[in-house]
Parts: sequence; structure tokens; C-alpha cells
Amino acid sequence: MAKAPVLTPRADDFPRWYQDLINKAELADNGPVRGTMVIRPYGYGLWERMQADLDTRIKATGTQNAYFPLLIPQAYLSREAEHVEGFAPELAVVTRAGGKELEEPVVVRPTSETIVNEYFSKWVQSYRDLPLLINQWANVVRWELRPRLFLRTSEFLWQEGHTAHASYEDARDFAARIHRDVYGDFMENVLAMDFVLGRKTPKERFAGALNTLTLEGMMGDGKALQLGTSHELGQNFAKAFHTQYLSRDGGQEYVWQTSWGATTRMIGALVMMHGDDNGLRVPPRLAAVQVVVLAIKGDDAVLAKVRETGDRLRAAGLRVQVDDRTDVPFGRRAVDWELKGVPVRVEIGPRDLENGTAMLARRIPGGKEPVAVDALAGLLPALLEEDQALLLRQSRERRVARTSEVSTVAEAAEAAVAGGWARIPWATLGAGGEAALAEHGVTVRCLVAEDGSVPETDDAPGTVALVARAY
Amino acid sequence: MAKAPVLTPRADDFPRWYQDLINKAELADNGPVRGTMVIRPYGYGLWERMQADLDTRIKATGTQNAYFPLLIPQAYLSREAEHVEGFAPELAVVTRAGGKELEEPVVVRPTSETIVNEYFSKWVQSYRDLPLLINQWANVVRWELRPRLFLRTSEFLWQEGHTAHASYEDARDFAARIHRDVYGDFMENVLAMDFVLGRKTPKERFAGALNTLTLEGMMGDGKALQLGTSHELGQNFAKAFHTQYLSRDGGQEYVWQTSWGATTRMIGALVMMHGDDNGLRVPPRLAAVQVVVLAIKGDDAVLAKVRETGDRLRAAGLRVQVDDRTDVPFGRRAVDWELKGVPVRVEIGPRDLENGTAMLARRIPGGKEPVAVDALAGLLPALLEEDQALLLRQSRERRVARTSEVSTVAEAAEAAVAGGWARIPWATLGAGGEAALAEHGVTVRCLVAEDGSVPETDDAPGTVALVARAY
Repeated sequence: MAKAPVLTPRADDFPRWYQDLINKAELADNGPVRGTMVIRPYGYGLWERMQADLDTRIKATGTQNAYFPLLIPQAYLSREAEHVEGFAPELAVVTRAGGKELEEPVVVRPTSETIVNEYFSKWVQSYRDLPLLINQWANVVRWELRPRLFLRTSEFLWQEGHTAHASYEDARDFAARIHRDVYGDFMENVLAMDFVLGRKTPKERFAGALNTLTLEGMMGDGKALQLGTSHELGQNFAKAFHTQYLSRDGGQEYVWQTSWGATTRMIGALVMMHGDDNGLRVPPRLAAVQVVVLAIKGDDAVLAKVRETGDRLRAAGLRVQVDDRTDVPFGRRAVDWELKGVPVRVEIGPRDLENGTAMLARRIPGGKEPVAVDALAGLLPALLEEDQALLLRQSRERRVARTSEVSTVAEAAEAAVAGGWARIPWATLGAGGEAALAEHGVTVRCLVAEDGSVPETDDAPGTVALVARAY
Repeated sequence: MAKAPVLTPRADDFPRWYQDLINKAELADNGPVRGTMVIRPYGYGLWERMQADLDTRIKATGTQNAYFPLLIPQAYLSREAEHVEGFAPELAVVTRAGGKELEEPVVVRPTSETIVNEYFSKWVQSYRDLPLLINQWANVVRWELRPRLFLRTSEFLWQEGHTAHASYEDARDFAARIHRDVYGDFMENVLAMDFVLGRKTPKERFAGALNTLTLEGMMGDGKALQLGTSHELGQNFAKAFHTQYLSRDGGQEYVWQTSWGATTRMIGALVMMHGDDNGLRVPPRLAAVQVVVLAIKGDDAVLAKVRETGDRLRAAGLRVQVDDRTDVPFGRRAVDWELKGVPVRVEIGPRDLENGTAMLARRIPGGKEPVAVDALAGLLPALLEEDQALLLRQSRERRVARTSEVSTVAEAAEAAVAGGWARIPWATLGAGGEAALAEHGVTVRCLVAEDGSVPETDDAPGTVALVARAY
């Protein structure tokens, strides 16, 4: 009789597989308040590595970190009409504090454009103060009716960048730089994720923005997931909060702004893009543990060899964990490391000592073969880079294979419902077609130019709409 | 006529000096909701450096980071009677979310012992799962009636550690290790802060703890500030949340727990302990910028020399910023760097080029003298270590000079009201004396043993109470 699979197979029930993986790899648990989550150490470790890398890239743009309050006066949100309309249904409101009813209720931030502008209007005096480039790492709350761990949670962690510029062009270029050079580069080169860079339709734009740039990734089941967004806010918030500066020629001008965010949703994307029926597969450049060296049995010679091998691989610049918990059965530990997606396992048992070998198990391409222990430190760095490239290639090939060119709204809906993406001329689809797709639970993920670049306007000639079901 | 001082002098009005410094050094602004704060980039940079260093030390104990939800069901808090009594007056309560009144209101976490225990009770099965060592970096909300930036804010940032152990002794030792080896070592060796390690009286203990260990520092005006705490929680929360484990001999036992936290208050302590009438003085080991190299004037040769000097100092392993903003008057920039407390300024003007010199201004001991530019890279590392040691010594000397030995409650109150600390035998003071002191706004900061160690019990013979006014 075949052993029961560790996870529900993806082909049987993709959402169930996802939930199983999150639980069994100990990434997160559901929180007690609807839609909230507890991020467990292994999941939080992925977030810490994402944060550290992205933070360095954000700082390289000249952006500085700061921290704005969690609690925002309700009245702030109402100052920008589209913004409050977009966020009102998702707000959590504190009405009581310090044992009393509050005279003015305060909201738990769903995003910080309003409160940031209140301070930008104080800090910005003249053109010398621009651009003002600020980022914060924070939690936000958006009440979620259909929660799913990491993908849609009532509270999530993110970074939110907020910038003010002296001109429309400066702001536009900065939003595009974050979109492509910060998020795009990070997701491609660290997360090994394929995506499409595009602009949102007016219907899908951030509430209060002139333009929203997005990165859309294809998950293992062919659905789409928005991986990050960068918004051109124009002067909408500046006008609502009187964020003005003295220009070079002595006039008072409103600043031009951007905001942009990437969230713990990236952990969910990592699972849904790179996971397989045995668990997660963590890209080596992201992995806190790239190599785990396992003692198959607990005799002294094996343990000594395992520790020595760990030290040698660490000395070669790899991130290594030694698993010498030989009171736990070897098979169970091996399955657990598979689930957690550590790229390489080096397994050493008594027989290996005689032969000077170890079993090398590669999580990403799969497969297991004996290798000379002495060769490992020379071998592994290149294998890990191969693995990194393979994940990116697999995600790209999936997207290409499951994207079809269509010419009618009906075909677009059909392709998306079947679990793929469809490309259709935006001139054919239009806002009417977009509304028709919504009846099938299908959305326009983004608009792209024919050459794959990001259109400068909503109605640039030759624009193509990318259509899919989405998480 | 003498120039107006940049800050209100400390001797005139210490709290006003503090507020002036926070504003002018651009550390923080008051938030719009009562008691909240905006941490500006320079202030947040101090926090980032504190976080990075403390996080490394916390991880070195085997503790892993995780993240628990911001929103906690109100009922959780009520499960531990002392805990809810202690925190109820400070809670912020969300009663409306997603456009509806909530059936059960949720509180914004004031601390996370309750929600952490809900999950510990699921994750801990047997003695093999212990100790369980978890930390989170998070924001918490405690409604504050008398707010003061960094010291008492309705929202603050912190790390909160939560651990579960198989025995009382294990938990006690771990709480003590965090107290002395993590917090104590960090504050002494990185923040250059003097403090006293002690235990809180029953009256001042964390709500729900068996014992609270504290670090108490003396501020520039002789008042005390609690710098960090580490709690032995005993089995109080374990019993409230049924956090049990299967022991080696097969029984079900409640775990023994600790919790411990250090907050953005440390930034306020840094200001109040090391600041002077010209601004902040940042300990070199903490400083994100240890050396600023300033161009006095904007001619090309000066700018080239300034950049070259910056590069050479960076190559010597120092954290360096070049200030070539010569469109801002030199004097204003120098005052600003003084305010921000950067340890060393290297000032280069046209005359220095001829002489091969630079003006070296040292913020911490004070004073300015010309030095050979070529000697700087060799000279500065040792000077910065001297400065680090000087700050610690000055804070220690202040505490020793302003602490008096007293033998009556009246003398203790008098010494504290006059702006110092008093040491009085705990057997003389007792809970009755503690209550009498409270009428003068004076508290027992902590109990210490005669030899300066931390007493193991509340009533150990020879225990001394340290008495002061506190922020």
C-alpha cells in the first residue's frame, strides 16, 4: 500500500494543498481574530531575509526609514474622497481607549498616505527639501471577509514608501524605478519569481492614485497574484493636506507624490509559485538555511563528521544548519526539511564514513546521489546558483505555457476560468469587457504594451490587457 | 550680545530642554492622536542600529523571531486576573470593523503574553519542545494620559520575548540571563549607559509576574528611568491558557515562563543620559554616522579633499558621511551636527589645503584642534573608543555622585525630591514606607543586595531599596 502523501496533492485541491503546506512547514497559523495570522519562526525567517534584502535596495535609492503612528484620526481619511471610499469598508475603528469613549474615533492604519502627508506638509518648505523619500516597515489592518494565510489577512506586514517630488516627471520616474529596479529586480534575482510588469486599469487602481504600476505573478494553478504595487499619486494628497513647497522661482507649488508597498503576501507567492507536492522550495539566495547536514544515526564518528562538514561548508560561505537530532527518526527529519524547502540536504551515515561519501539530496530539481564529502564545498555554490536559475525558469515557462492570445471577451473569460492567463487587446476589451469578465470572477490584472513594456497612458495604442482569475 | 542658545539650557528647564532637543535634532514629532509619535529618519536610524545589535544578541541565546497578531480578543486578557487589572485602564479597543459593530470587541495589544500563550499551548506537546524561545519586534498601544516623546507614548515600538521552560530554575535563569547578559551588556557596551540591575517590589511588578527584573538608569537631572525589564511569569499564564507539556516521566505539567522587553524609550534615555546643552551625544558604537567630513566652502579643491578624506576614513572601517552642502551656511551645518550628536566632525576649508590639515571637532569630550589630514585614519578609531568609554564613565560618575545613603523614609523622600537617588534598607522602608514615598511622587525603583547583586527574593536579608523620582 502506498504511503499517504504528506500534503494534499496540488492537482487534487490547490487551495487545500496551500493550507496544508503552510501548516506542516510551520510557516503560519490562523489568528484568533478573524483573518489575522501568527507568523511562526520559519515563516518569519523568510520575511526577515526578504526585509533585509529589500531594505538595502530601498535605501540605495536614497530613501530613509521612519515610523508613523498606527492610529489615524478618522477625519484624515475623508480628506481625499476616492481614498476614503476605497478604504472605508475595510477599516478597523478604535472607539474606546483609556477606559473612555473617544470623542473622535481613530482608525487603525490601512495604509499611511494621509498621516504621512500631514507631516510632509510640515517638513517640506522649499524645493531644497525635495525629493523627500521615506519608507516605513509596519503592520496595517484591512478587514478581510475572505481571508487566506499570507495572501489576504486582516493584518499584514509590509513596507510602504512615500515620496514627494518637485515635478510630475520626477515622481513618475521614481514610481517606475521602484516598480522595475527595486521590486522587479528583487523578485527576479532573489525570489526567483517570474512576473509581468504592467499598469492597472482605472477600475483596479489604488484609491486616490493617478496610476498604479503592478507586478503580477502566475501561481502554480495558473491564477494570478499581485506581488507589489507602485503608485503615482499626482497631487491628490498634496492638495488634501496642503503639502506645498516654495519653488525656485518663488511660487507655492503642490508636491507630486508616489507610494509603493510590498507585503508578507510575498511569502504566500513563494509557496504558490515554487512549492510542489512535497512542500516548499526556497530559492537559495533567499534561504536562511541553504544546506542542512543531517546525521542519519547518532554514533560519535557520524556526529563528528556531520559537524566537521557543516563547518567546512560554512567556511565556504554557505548558510548551513547541522541536524544532529538523532532522537527523532531520520525519515521524519528528511520529510520535514523537504516540507520546509531547504535547497540542499547532505546526509551522512556510518557507511558514508568508510567511503568518504555523503548522500546529496537536491530539493529544487529533485534527486539524490552519493558524492565525495571532500568535493561538497567546491560543488555546492554552483549547484545552488543552478537551482536559483531553475526556479525562475520553471515559473517563467509555466506562465508562457499557460498564457493564450485571444480576441474576444468570451475567449478571455474561458481561458481564465480554465486556469490560465489571456492576452487581449485593451481596445477590444475596454471597460465594458472588464465589467463582463467580473461576472466570471475574472479581472484585468494589468495593461502591457505589445513589446512587453509598461504603457505610459491608459489608452496608448497597441495596449494589451492581461486577464486572469486572481488570489 | 550673546547669541541665544540653540536649546533651552538643561539647568533652566530639563523637560523643555528634552523637548527642544527631540524637535531640533529631528528625532520625533508628536502624532495627531494623543500620545502617539512620528519617529523621524534620524531618530529611527538610532532605533535601527539598536534593533540590529540587540537582535543579534537575542538570537545568540537561541531565541527565534516570530510575529503574533496586533488584535487580541478582549476575553484573552481577562483570563489572568492581575494582568487584566493592570492593563485594563490603558487599553485601546476596536469595536467596529469592516463596516459593522463587532460581536466581541478586540483590543490592540498592550503586550502579548495572552495571545502568545494561546499558541504556546498548541505548539508545546512534550519536554522535547522546551525550552521554547520566541521574540517579536512589534508596536504596542497603551493609552497614555501624560505622554512624553519616547518615554511615555500611547504607541511604542519594542521587542517582546516570550519563553516557556520545563522548570522554575530554567525560567528564572533565562530571565536573569536576558536581564544581565543581553540587556545589561548591550546597554553598557553599545549605549554606554550606566544602570543598576535590581528587582522590582511587589507593587511595581509586571501585572501577572512572580518577579520583575529591571535596569534603572539615572537621567541628566537625577531622575530615574526604567530601561528594560525581564519577568519571571511562573505558571500564571500557563494555567490560564493550559500550556502544558508531557514530562519525561509521563505526567502533564504546566510550563514555566518568562517575558522581557526593551523599547523605543531607549532613545529617550540616550538623550537624557548623554545629551548636553548643545544637543545629543551619540555613543560611537551606536552611531550610524561616527564621523562627518564637512566642506567649509564649496570650491573644487576643498570638495575633492573632503570626498577623498571621507573615502579614506571609510576604508579605515569608520562610518562616515560627507557634508558637501555648501549652499547651506557652514555654521548652521556645524550646529546641526552638534545637535544630532555625531561624535566627530572633520572640517576642511581652503586654508587647510595648504597646510595639509583639518579641524577635528570632538562632540563628546568637546574641543576642537587642527590635525594633519593624513593622521586622521590612524587617530580616529582610538579616539572614538575613548569617547565611548567617557560617556559610560560620565553617566556612572553622575549616578554615584547623586546617590546618597539614608536611613529614614523622610530622608529618602527629601533626596529624591531634590533630584537624586537614595539607598535605604528595604527592612526600614517596607511596603508602608513605599506608600509614604508615593505621596511625594517618589517610587522604589528596585531592590538590590548590599554587594550590588540582584536579590533572589523580596525579603532577602540586607536588601537595599533604591528610591527616586522617575520618568
